[in-house]
Amino acid sequence: MSTTPKYVYSFGDGKAEGRSDMKELLGGKGANLAEMSSIGIPVPPGFTITTEVCHDYYEGGKKLPEAVKPQVEAALNLVESQSGKKFGDSHDPLLVSVRSGAALSMPGMMNTILNLGLNDASVEGLAKKTGNARFAYDGYRRLIDMFGSTAMGVEHEAFEHELSKLKEEKKVKLDTDLTADDLKELVKRYKAVYSKHVGEGFPQDPKDQLWKAIMAVFNSWMGNKAVQYRRIERISELKGTAVNVQAMVFGNTGTNSGTGVAFTRDPNTGADEFFGDYLINAQGEDVVAGIRTPEPITQLDSEMPKVYKQLMDIRQKLEQHYKEMQDVEFTVEEGTLYMLQTRTGKRTGSAAVRIAVEMVKEGLIDEKTALKRVAADSLNHLLLPQLDPKAKVTSVARGIAASPGAACGKVILSADAAVAFHEEHPEQPIMLVRKETSPEDVAGMHLAKGILTQTGGKASHAAVVARGWGKPCVVGCEAIQIDEKKGQITIGDKVVKVGDYLTINGTTGDVIIGQVPTVDPTISGHFAELMSWADKTRTLKVRTNADTPADAAKAREFGAEGIGLCRTEHMFFEGQRIVDMRKMILADDTEGRVKALQALEPYQRKDFVGIFEAMDGLPVTIRLLDPPLHEFLPHDDAGQNEVAKQLGIPVEKVKRRVEQLHEANPMLGLRGCRLPIKFPEIGDMQVRAILEAAIEVKKKGKSVLPEIMIPLIGTVEELSILKKRALAVAEEVFKKAGTKVEFLIGTMIEIPRAALTADQIAEEAEFFSFGTNDLTQLTFGFSRDDIGSFMPAYIENKILPVDPFQTLDQAGVGQLVEMGTAKGRKARKEKHGEHLKVGICGEHGGDPESVVFCHNVGMDYVSCSPFRVPIARLAAAQAVLGSAGQRDK
Amino acid sequence: MSTTPKYVYSFGDGKAEGRSDMKELLGGKGANLAEMSSIGIPVPPGFTITTEVCHDYYEGGKKLPEAVKPQVEAALNLVESQSGKKFGDSHDPLLVSVRSGAALSMPGMMNTILNLGLNDASVEGLAKKTGNARFAYDGYRRLIDMFGSTAMGVEHEAFEHELSKLKEEKKVKLDTDLTADDLKELVKRYKAVYSKHVGEGFPQDPKDQLWKAIMAVFNSWMGNKAVQYRRIERISELKGTAVNVQAMVFGNTGTNSGTGVAFTRDPNTGADEFFGDYLINAQGEDVVAGIRTPEPITQLDSEMPKVYKQLMDIRQKLEQHYKEMQDVEFTVEEGTLYMLQTRTGKRTGSAAVRIAVEMVKEGLIDEKTALKRVAADSLNHLLLPQLDPKAKVTSVARGIAASPGAACGKVILSADAAVAFHEEHPEQPIMLVRKETSPEDVAGMHLAKGILTQTGGKASHAAVVARGWGKPCVVGCEAIQIDEKKGQITIGDKVVKVGDYLTINGTTGDVIIGQVPTVDPTISGHFAELMSWADKTRTLKVRTNADTPADAAKAREFGAEGIGLCRTEHMFFEGQRIVDMRKMILADDTEGRVKALQALEPYQRKDFVGIFEAMDGLPVTIRLLDPPLHEFLPHDDAGQNEVAKQLGIPVEKVKRRVEQLHEANPMLGLRGCRLPIKFPEIGDMQVRAILEAAIEVKKKGKSVLPEIMIPLIGTVEELSILKKRALAVAEEVFKKAGTKVEFLIGTMIEIPRAALTADQIAEEAEFFSFGTNDLTQLTFGFSRDDIGSFMPAYIENKILPVDPFQTLDQAGVGQLVEMGTAKGRKARKEKHGEHLKVGICGEHGGDPESVVFCHNVGMDYVSCSPFRVPIARLAAAQAVLGSAGQRDK
Repeated sequence: MSTTPKYVYSFGDGKAEGRSDMKELLGGKGANLAEMSSIGIPVPPGFTITTEVCHDYYEGGKKLPEAVKPQVEAALNLVESQSGKKFGDSHDPLLVSVRSGAALSMPGMMNTILNLGLNDASVEGLAKKTGNARFAYDGYRRLIDMFGSTAMGVEHEAFEHELSKLKEEKKVKLDTDLTADDLKELVKRYKAVYSKHVGEGFPQDPKDQLWKAIMAVFNSWMGNKAVQYRRIERISELKGTAVNVQAMVFGNTGTNSGTGVAFTRDPNTGADEFFGDYLINAQGEDVVAGIRTPEPITQLDSEMPKVYKQLMDIRQKLEQHYKEMQDVEFTVEEGTLYMLQTRTGKRTGSAAVRIAVEMVKEGLIDEKTALKRVAADSLNHLLLPQLDPKAKVTSVARGIAASPGAACGKVILSADAAVAFHEEHPEQPIMLVRKETSPEDVAGMHLAKGILTQTGGKASHAAVVARGWGKPCVVGCEAIQIDEKKGQITIGDKVVKVGDYLTINGTTGDVIIGQVPTVDPTISGHFAELMSWADKTRTLKVRTNADTPADAAKAREFGAEGIGLCRTEHMFFEGQRIVDMRKMILADDTEGRVKALQALEPYQRKDFVGIFEAMDGLPVTIRLLDPPLHEFLPHDDAGQNEVAKQLGIPVEKVKRRVEQLHEANPMLGLRGCRLPIKFPEIGDMQVRAILEAAIEVKKKGKSVLPEIMIPLIGTVEELSILKKRALAVAEEVFKKAGTKVEFLIGTMIEIPRAALTADQIAEEAEFFSFGTNDLTQLTFGFSRDDIGSFMPAYIENKILPVDPFQTLDQAGVGQLVEMGTAKGRKARKEKHGEHLKVGICGEHGGDPESVVFCHNVGMDYVSCSPFRVPIARLAAAQAVLGSAGQRDK
Repeated sequence: MSTTPKYVYSFGDGKAEGRSDMKELLGGKGANLAEMSSIGIPVPPGFTITTEVCHDYYEGGKKLPEAVKPQVEAALNLVESQSGKKFGDSHDPLLVSVRSGAALSMPGMMNTILNLGLNDASVEGLAKKTGNARFAYDGYRRLIDMFGSTAMGVEHEAFEHELSKLKEEKKVKLDTDLTADDLKELVKRYKAVYSKHVGEGFPQDPKDQLWKAIMAVFNSWMGNKAVQYRRIERISELKGTAVNVQAMVFGNTGTNSGTGVAFTRDPNTGADEFFGDYLINAQGEDVVAGIRTPEPITQLDSEMPKVYKQLMDIRQKLEQHYKEMQDVEFTVEEGTLYMLQTRTGKRTGSAAVRIAVEMVKEGLIDEKTALKRVAADSLNHLLLPQLDPKAKVTSVARGIAASPGAACGKVILSADAAVAFHEEHPEQPIMLVRKETSPEDVAGMHLAKGILTQTGGKASHAAVVARGWGKPCVVGCEAIQIDEKKGQITIGDKVVKVGDYLTINGTTGDVIIGQVPTVDPTISGHFAELMSWADKTRTLKVRTNADTPADAAKAREFGAEGIGLCRTEHMFFEGQRIVDMRKMILADDTEGRVKALQALEPYQRKDFVGIFEAMDGLPVTIRLLDPPLHEFLPHDDAGQNEVAKQLGIPVEKVKRRVEQLHEANPMLGLRGCRLPIKFPEIGDMQVRAILEAAIEVKKKGKSVLPEIMIPLIGTVEELSILKKRALAVAEEVFKKAGTKVEFLIGTMIEIPRAALTADQIAEEAEFFSFGTNDLTQLTFGFSRDDIGSFMPAYIENKILPVDPFQTLDQAGVGQLVEMGTAKGRKARKEKHGEHLKVGICGEHGGDPESVVFCHNVGMDYVSCSPFRVPIARLAAAQAVLGSAGQRDK
């Protein structure tokens, strides 16, 4: 005996056949309507046709299972009895809405159709019943438009055209200026449009309307847009879409009606206060459209005290039930409250933290749930200054949001000018605006409050450096034109002169002309509490990328457990250092280089002493010089002349050296470990400075754990040669000092070949640190400085779901990371009986999804910018709790 | 009962305990001496101490096994009885040589010590016996020098110093001017040097000398140099070195003595003629040193008819025995012939072919052996013009041998100047000398006989293009300085003006000032025969990389079975095409681009028609436009002004576009499939031209098999979008033409990510072609245009055993090739039930070792330059025969 499957689930009147955990079968919307109804929250009655019906519809060659029809009829009868109205009744008709709803929210599927059940007869009944003919005919013409365009393929523009024509004829401007009679005429014209395009008249049988709408929802599941969306997002686990049919309620039937939206807590601050807006005598879309200004929800207490009290009860009920902050929609029809939707409410990072922590205190959730509740990325908001939310701002351009936070300053067009300006006006804020930035610009960049560039992506020099400093930055803002000669930039038709104020919002990418006030973040006690739970939970260590004692100290405040990447190149740009660096580069022979390096060594040693002191007791990974040498020389005539003068050599020599160092693809040229292979004295100096500094700090009674990292290794031979050399230098230093320090020598894995031959490399390396910036560049063949020219087309075509320089590409780059880790670990264990320490120090170390990946791969630590340390700590805890760390869909 | 192992193998007097197949135990030299002796060829008697002794020596803590000593004593006794002389005899002493010899030839091990057995007493005996005191004392002082420096660690310079001092005292210039008494004095002084450095006198006991020499050989096995060599070459299978002790014979005892070297066939031509030189009354080193001019070997027939006849018999015996051409050394002592060495003789490519084929005819070897006998790479010699071997040349500089063959022409310093010069003097040969070349230079490059560049490596633009054309090319010749303004180049202190003759040897990298005659190759019948055997044997197809009908036709002559890579970018540089191309690039919008592309389309179609016709019946893989667009625009003011004039647009616009297109790393920028993703109209035009051309050729009754290849794919989404677009264009073309052609759409696998995600990509791709040039660049992070700056240091440090752009890096890049092939094949089979066609079209497709790798990976074909097609055919056959395709060690 086969039982007929249950295809239709009713809800309403305090009961429901479905539950919120039946999203797969009922879709998200249907499941939540059922849940609300079953816990006694008033919702307009209705029913959900399951996703299985959709599945069977396609399996059966676009035919609905036979049992669907009687089940729908029965459910509709129930809605009629619950609402006390009849579908198609010519006096007091039941009107319904039809909506699609899958388990995941999905663009490309059919929109809502409202007011189903209206026809030439029932519209009159509605007019009489409500005493509002305008309301009734406006509803009818909207039905014809929605039904025609979304269910029957009529172009919406054809209806719009008639509306415009009529307004012209009537010489009115707004839709609302049309009278009831005008709308009656419009219904006539709309029906004509409908007939012409569909080939038959607008269906007068409400059941006919209903079934056509239901079929339209199912057909939209396989529509081009929906199929493509699922393909791109790799969604394959869904059965289909559900269909929700629900009685209409109206908030615009008079002053005893109304509509509103609310959050059960303040989504900006997280405060445990009811938060929202409402409008009397209005429909939902009026609140959204912003034609009328809504009132704050607390105001409702005086206007409709009973309804307000009911709402406050529902607020509490929902939170107790869902154990989560809710975002609700409601409508009051003739004094009766209906809840139309509830869903988890979106919130700012600080609100998320406060809500999660307070809900633990309230006993609603446990600590683990609280940790999962806060999107790790959203902690940004707690760590950076923001535009004052009270300020009115107009964005004149939008670039790529490269480093979050807001900044405001006076426009300066070059790093040198920024330095000069700062010397004269140290109190005035600078906004550095450049086509792009290079390592030469770091001094000026450091002085700026914010950085704006015309080109580059999220991993361009400006972006990486700014993020490292926690300095707001917008890059790739193609709309700006920089004219250094004229001392101005133009954005569209607007001109901003040097010295004028400009504001950027690094969180959104917005550029605003003028001065906008910013607010400083407050790190509340809730935040600290959440972090302590995260630290208890996580197994992955979190280090930081820091190049200065100040950054190191700041990162330690944020909870960093060591330095995973200390870049040494930034150390050579200031004051006398750059002069000696250039002497080294311009030296004719080894002797000349050694002399210049000797001059640099005390600076290096001092840098390391400061960093080791700041990181007392924690490991510090120092990367040897990485960038190509040409980055230390100026490329313009003026700069070259100056260098020649400074060094007392002919300018031709400077030019010749710049020319010699020029490379077609510097990213793939003489840099990283290739430098000390060619000029061993450079590496020697750095190793000596590191170890001498370590000894100096150790002698002060502190604990130093230096890890020397050799970059850009592609073959084990490179590492073996450089390691041997470093060990020789170490021996010399220790002998001279009469004491030793323990240290490690390891490498970055950032060349694909290094990951592929990680077993060989691990025989020499004492640790691996995945440099996923370069690894991503090489695995994709993308120059992060140049992707601006095609990345927009790639995003538009959904070729990349997300910027691979921001979130690690697990399908491609991730394979190399997994392979490198596994091969390296195995070989190190086999050959040396040791656990190989593995970490990551690319930008990805601060990206939550990537942090989860690193945890799953079994890394020992991630390392990220100081400002992302708390984010990584939380993400690492979430990884333990089984979070996929994925982005919202 | 344990038997004492046999540690010592005797040879001599027509007998031997060893054989030539005992190389592992006796080393190469010892095994061959034994073999010669046992087949009745006269060799001075001696013995070999096995490699096992060396092994046991180290296993036993540097102690010789006990049984060695008595076995050596016994073998020495046998040598004494066979030679009729006593070791250490003061009247007629037996003298011996001691040499190391492992199974593989290995630098870093101990050199030969000659004349062991001489001491203060026996030297007098030898002087008396030979009546030549000078000879005896010269031998003695050489022994002290060799023994002291190679066995006892005395610096050779210390002996040399004494020699120079004595010559000064005696006021003579040459060593040979020293008299017997002088040499007697020198022996005294050498002994003093020895005592001073060693701390004891030169050993007078010949046995003592012998044992010390033997131990020195064993110790050299673990010497730094030898250990390092084995590590770098990854030699781990050897047990140790053997020691060869052999009676000395002297060719310099009078006119009845002599010495010579010979090949059993002509190593230059392969002719079946005895080939060599000899000197009467001379030692081996005299032949090598070139102080006296040796006589051709045939001359010996009249001087020493008996010896000559004996030599001719030995020649035949050796060839019959070894079934291989031999390189022998011999000495005649007092009318008695001794063979000192035989080994496989080195030969030119044409000799190798002739010898292999003739030996098959002679029944010495079979066809398979013949195929293995010819180093595939050596076929180069048969395919290209060479410097006339009769010409006397002096190389003034040596660069990287980038494309083999010799060329001579008048120096021209720019591509444009080459075009102009050619127009005026079409009959005069051009030698194009540039810092580096770029795609703009191709017209001028094509007109040149040879190309010489100052920078770049084997995979630089100049090298790749020249190799494709089979045009001699030397790159990375850092010694040349180009001064375009002065119209000259300088090489060291020599100046070569524009218009002067310069000759290059692309096979060796040599640069020669002036005109050197070249000889054209003759492709003999032997060559064709060998190739036919190769074709019967191989399973791997061989295609060619060809961009023009002429190249295609030439490659077909060389046996190409299709085109594996037809690059379309070279097609846009000539005449009107470059103008239209630039119009396209400078267009403001899609419309403008489409218009320019329409103008280009007929040219493209015509190109493809020619290629399809030339390749009638064979597949043709056409790669869509690959390079960045800036390569089509001039980068200098003059060029930009001209373009502006030509196109009637302001020069500022040209400059702006060049600036816009500028990229930090063009290799990783907007190129390959990224171009048609951004500008789909470019791909559309090319696909249309390909398919229209295919239809046109098909209509002529020919068979066309187009394969459209989309370059630089990194994600399956790129391919899926571009494939869909190409299929749409195809449908349109076929509809218009009223007919269809079959074609494939596939991709290059040249981005590491493509190999890693090959399973995904194979769902869309109908074939894979590994672009190992770019794959190598990205896997190593090497820009082939920039490696010149550090590659010398890499080679010097043995970081890379071989240029990875020439021979595929199997350890790293090879993993990606294997992974990509396996994943792609599996997915294609699973999803489409099809075999995925896989080939390679990088430079490696013509490298024998890489071809063997491709065969082993299971590829369907390799594709290479027309001139390398025969090489690939032979290598593919060798792969079947189990050759590892490795370089000589």
